[in-house]
Amino acid sequence: MKYISLLGATGSIGTQTLDIIKEHPTEFVLAAMSVGRNIDLARKLIAEFHPELVCVLNKEDADSLRLEFPEIKFTYGFEGLSEVAVYKKSTILVNAVMGSVGLEPTLHAIEAGKAIALANKETLVTAGHIVMNAVRRNQVPLLPVDSEHSAIFQALQGEFEKNIGKLILTASGGSFRDRKRRELENVTVQDALNHPNWSMGAKITIDSATMMNKGLEVIEAHWLFDIPYEKIDVVLHKESIIHSMIEFHDSSVMAQLGTPDMRVPIQYALTYPDRLPLKTAQTLNLAKVGQLHFAEMDFERFRCLKFAYDAGIAGGTFPTVLNAANEIAVEAFLKGKITFLQIEDLIENALTYHQSIMEPSLAEIKAVDDETRKYVNSLL
Amino acid sequence: MKYISLLGATGSIGTQTLDIIKEHPTEFVLAAMSVGRNIDLARKLIAEFHPELVCVLNKEDADSLRLEFPEIKFTYGFEGLSEVAVYKKSTILVNAVMGSVGLEPTLHAIEAGKAIALANKETLVTAGHIVMNAVRRNQVPLLPVDSEHSAIFQALQGEFEKNIGKLILTASGGSFRDRKRRELENVTVQDALNHPNWSMGAKITIDSATMMNKGLEVIEAHWLFDIPYEKIDVVLHKESIIHSMIEFHDSSVMAQLGTPDMRVPIQYALTYPDRLPLKTAQTLNLAKVGQLHFAEMDFERFRCLKFAYDAGIAGGTFPTVLNAANEIAVEAFLKGKITFLQIEDLIENALTYHQSIMEPSLAEIKAVDDETRKYVNSLL
Repeated sequence: MKYISLLGATGSIGTQTLDIIKEHPTEFVLAAMSVGRNIDLARKLIAEFHPELVCVLNKEDADSLRLEFPEIKFTYGFEGLSEVAVYKKSTILVNAVMGSVGLEPTLHAIEAGKAIALANKETLVTAGHIVMNAVRRNQVPLLPVDSEHSAIFQALQGEFEKNIGKLILTASGGSFRDRKRRELENVTVQDALNHPNWSMGAKITIDSATMMNKGLEVIEAHWLFDIPYEKIDVVLHKESIIHSMIEFHDSSVMAQLGTPDMRVPIQYALTYPDRLPLKTAQTLNLAKVGQLHFAEMDFERFRCLKFAYDAGIAGGTFPTVLNAANEIAVEAFLKGKITFLQIEDLIENALTYHQSIMEPSLAEIKAVDDETRKYVNSLL
Repeated sequence: MKYISLLGATGSIGTQTLDIIKEHPTEFVLAAMSVGRNIDLARKLIAEFHPELVCVLNKEDADSLRLEFPEIKFTYGFEGLSEVAVYKKSTILVNAVMGSVGLEPTLHAIEAGKAIALANKETLVTAGHIVMNAVRRNQVPLLPVDSEHSAIFQALQGEFEKNIGKLILTASGGSFRDRKRRELENVTVQDALNHPNWSMGAKITIDSATMMNKGLEVIEAHWLFDIPYEKIDVVLHKESIIHSMIEFHDSSVMAQLGTPDMRVPIQYALTYPDRLPLKTAQTLNLAKVGQLHFAEMDFERFRCLKFAYDAGIAGGTFPTVLNAANEIAVEAFLKGKITFLQIEDLIENALTYHQSIMEPSLAEIKAVDDETRKYVNSLL
């Protein structure tokens, strides 16, 4: 029986994590969870999963839930996230919270010796050097939940990292994969949210359309697998069937494939190094799929991916700026304040404006994150 | 430094094994080898690789080579193969000899505690139960050299066999992959020998065209990975880029990919569980390949594959009959004695005629092999 702490229980990855827990009641127990403002869903989840500790965003919600569920411990706010992350009974933290608030609870969980199933991108993008040092020092497993990184992680089992030639991340191309650059000028929010393969949250769906999602994944892959950027390739693969690959130095390529279903990498992180059946998953029928397509990545077409490589290679606080500027820009696009292509322009502007700090501390990362958000907001 | 015994040094797999040994002179030494009648090539190989022991087919060749290379030990004939296989200095036997003569030397090498890199199909097809028992008893690694089995073996690293849902072998479809059944009636030997993806010997190229090669591989996979036949699928994949796959019970599919090059699985068998660089291999560029195609296997179109499944499931001496009948039929086709489609008819006839012996001994396998050859020859 594995006891699980889950940050971000009501989000896309959170609810799918709960699906997996429900699918294997004799294997997994939800010991602690955090939710944000979605108290209606939280109430249902509490009744169904009976976690011992629940963190909500606001004190008022914690107070009222406490009256409804007197046997459960409630906490709230930013500090509450870390309480969930280090909850004593849990041996693994699934971090599915969005944004930079995910970083500190992860670090606390690492220091507490928990295994980390990581779906929070900002953790590695902004503080990869700090997180990976903590992982090595505390010798905890860092298990990727993203389909791409999980694919690489699965392909790496039974292999030696020293033999890696390169990592090949696949990219679906997102909602606008079949449009030329000049056809992007007047796209609507609704168009952008219509991802062909994956059902995900709004922010990540826009990030797929701009290819920033792949850019953040490149930076994550760099830290997760300790691989220099020149050995990380991205190939367009519109079916999202091959989730990513490793090319070894003997030219052999190991790949993980499947029908797009985030529950598979989530479950693998929870069962690693073993696997459990996932009966409700749709198995891959390649004969039915018929064809898999691949095409060279176009860095002119997808400028955000180029920004991400550049920010990753430059290092320091550049990835923090990349991420913060992107968050504000995507938010502005979703609110109809800017056009789709202005997302890129705002990020480029923020990166150009920034003076990087090398090997930044957590406080410096926070400060740069705040400054960048302010700066990009001032441009809107 | 790994000392290698190589059976079948002048064949396609043999010479490519020697390429790998040459590529890594500080890692591998050819300690002993066998050749057949190709004494000219044998002479060159002896001069280049200086094996300590060489087996040739005929006594006369051994006698004359002994005069030329007095520092080298020569042996000959069927017993000589086993001498090479168990050569004291060697820790691994690469069995790349063709036909049923490959079986006994493999068993001797297993008993002598050698690791076995197996390219000889008959070993597992005709005596899988005997070979796998010997492997388990002596706890030696049995390393597949076929690209399909190597792919599955590579995909299995870091995994648990209990979690396998099914094996998926890919099949290029061979020389006639784009022809309908009625278009096969008048095909020539030359047409059949023109394989689109792989450069291999004549026998195996014909076996690719009839799909018998895949059938024998299904039987081998059954024994190698201890998987029932209903969990072994074959999918048509004309590019031969995905070399085979494992679907695990969580629906995750692990695959090994690469530009078709037999040296990759050969080298992996020699370096397992590590990998060495293979600088002369052409790395896979999926963007350049553009598309991978998959199609359902057609058992009406490729009757030999159906025969193989049936023979495998029936067990006993049926696979021996399948293999022996196929060898005689292919030989007859290559000599122009029968048409392409008559290969299937002869095999079907032999299987129908046969009364199987369950759990056959080596002597019984040999007897059935001989009888089948005589029977099929009598039909020509």
